[in-house]
Amino acid sequence: MMYATVRLDGSVVVARVDRDAGLAWPLALDPGEAALGVAALARRAAEGQAAPAERDAVPLASLALLAPVPRPARNIFCVGKNYHEHAEEFARSGFDSSAAAGAVPKAPIIFSKVPESVIGPGETIRINASVSMAVDYEAELAVIIGRGGRGISRDRALDHVWGYTIVNDVTARDLQGRHSQWLIGKSQDTFCPMGPFAVTADSLDLADTAITCEVNGEPRQASNTKLLIFDVPTLIATLSAGITLMPGDVIATGTPAGVGIGFDPPRYLKPGDVVRVTVGGIGTLENPVGAA
Amino acid sequence: MMYATVRLDGSVVVARVDRDAGLAWPLALDPGEAALGVAALARRAAEGQAAPAERDAVPLASLALLAPVPRPARNIFCVGKNYHEHAEEFARSGFDSSAAAGAVPKAPIIFSKVPESVIGPGETIRINASVSMAVDYEAELAVIIGRGGRGISRDRALDHVWGYTIVNDVTARDLQGRHSQWLIGKSQDTFCPMGPFAVTADSLDLADTAITCEVNGEPRQASNTKLLIFDVPTLIATLSAGITLMPGDVIATGTPAGVGIGFDPPRYLKPGDVVRVTVGGIGTLENPVGAA
Repeated sequence: MMYATVRLDGSVVVARVDRDAGLAWPLALDPGEAALGVAALARRAAEGQAAPAERDAVPLASLALLAPVPRPARNIFCVGKNYHEHAEEFARSGFDSSAAAGAVPKAPIIFSKVPESVIGPGETIRINASVSMAVDYEAELAVIIGRGGRGISRDRALDHVWGYTIVNDVTARDLQGRHSQWLIGKSQDTFCPMGPFAVTADSLDLADTAITCEVNGEPRQASNTKLLIFDVPTLIATLSAGITLMPGDVIATGTPAGVGIGFDPPRYLKPGDVVRVTVGGIGTLENPVGAA
Repeated sequence: MMYATVRLDGSVVVARVDRDAGLAWPLALDPGEAALGVAALARRAAEGQAAPAERDAVPLASLALLAPVPRPARNIFCVGKNYHEHAEEFARSGFDSSAAAGAVPKAPIIFSKVPESVIGPGETIRINASVSMAVDYEAELAVIIGRGGRGISRDRALDHVWGYTIVNDVTARDLQGRHSQWLIGKSQDTFCPMGPFAVTADSLDLADTAITCEVNGEPRQASNTKLLIFDVPTLIATLSAGITLMPGDVIATGTPAGVGIGFDPPRYLKPGDVVRVTVGGIGTLENPVGAA
């Protein structure tokens, strides 16, 4: 099943989507729930509640798509250097404050992006040239947690996944290096494009899902989720060992090789660019780049 | 002015406090606002609203103190290695994934703790021996943001401070080192004791406020906020350069020398210990340590 969070008649609404039919069925959620986006569905599923009723179908093209989880309840968990070739390109870049520990990490590298960095499909990634001159894209599959918990084993981890979406983990490389810990470089306003859709866990094959990124139509990243160094069950087990996961938590799983910093000279984003991140079965997240 | 967030007749209530008189005046806030703790006051001040009315005084000793901001709206911003002697002891410890950049940072090191790690005064810091065998204390002054904003200059930064409280930035040193980025080691459940009180900005002198920590009555940390490497205006200017700060945001400013990892051999926390963090003018935050 595929869902979107949309704006309809001025309100935030969650809708089931059939892309082939070009239709969307708005769900009967009260406004407070709908404002959570698909996180409301994750929460309901976690509580064993029935799926909300569907209203009459509307044309998908008539809807303004928002980020599936427009404002996560806490910072988005993110994973660094989680594809081999990217780990190597980043360690070589000179911006990797974790490089001393080796190019390929021995344990998941977890940092966060503030919830307010989230923007929807089509919204503009803003570059403030007085703050960063090295803004980069990172195509990522993101997990949306359903049932929360602590001490979740790898074996049971996928039972805690409600679904998946796409995140572009936009990063200011200069700030990422300068501040050593990555929060500032990762959390700049507009630095977390998300969407366009979310799919339920049964709709995506973690063992074989393509992930690509293009800038202005030029292919930059092309990989597959089967190449994750730390797979989704390992990430969930690692995080939940001592941190209680909650319904609606978002975990961005890391980006493959081909980011701007991997080129010599680096190829950073600039106003006027368009970034498109595609994950098989979810869709394409497209965002223009502009000046702040 | 001093405030506390308390439990009164089963509800969360914010109260003005006069410690000398041993009295507290519950504020007339609706339950949704009161649940935010003193962040509700920060938000009201940011919006130019009048202070809420005060109800009849009650004995301070009759109230159960909660964390002043029981559940921040997003992860707590934290600063690493922000006192010289601590930066040096930590760089020597072998757990510092940022040590390659030098002991004393050239720019603020910013990471985060999840909101749900917050516990109140008297609540138990839980050590799960299967997850970490190296749990450490960190006494810190924490800033509570009033008026939000972006691109805040150092000169105007203190206009954006609503007040201050105390945070014990409890840290699993082994996880902090193993995962390179610090979120996991810092965000374990119960790892953010906060309180007991919050004071408004005018009640604390950043240029001369003592900060101490003792474990089981033994002095461990003793410093002064005047010794911060990056002062509060610099932290606010650095964060807000590209991240819009919001009313109620909490910024833990870093810990001075004397943490457990600074001893040889290290002196970590263990079940049965009691940690007391004192910041002049705010009070003493005391938490027992127990097994998870």
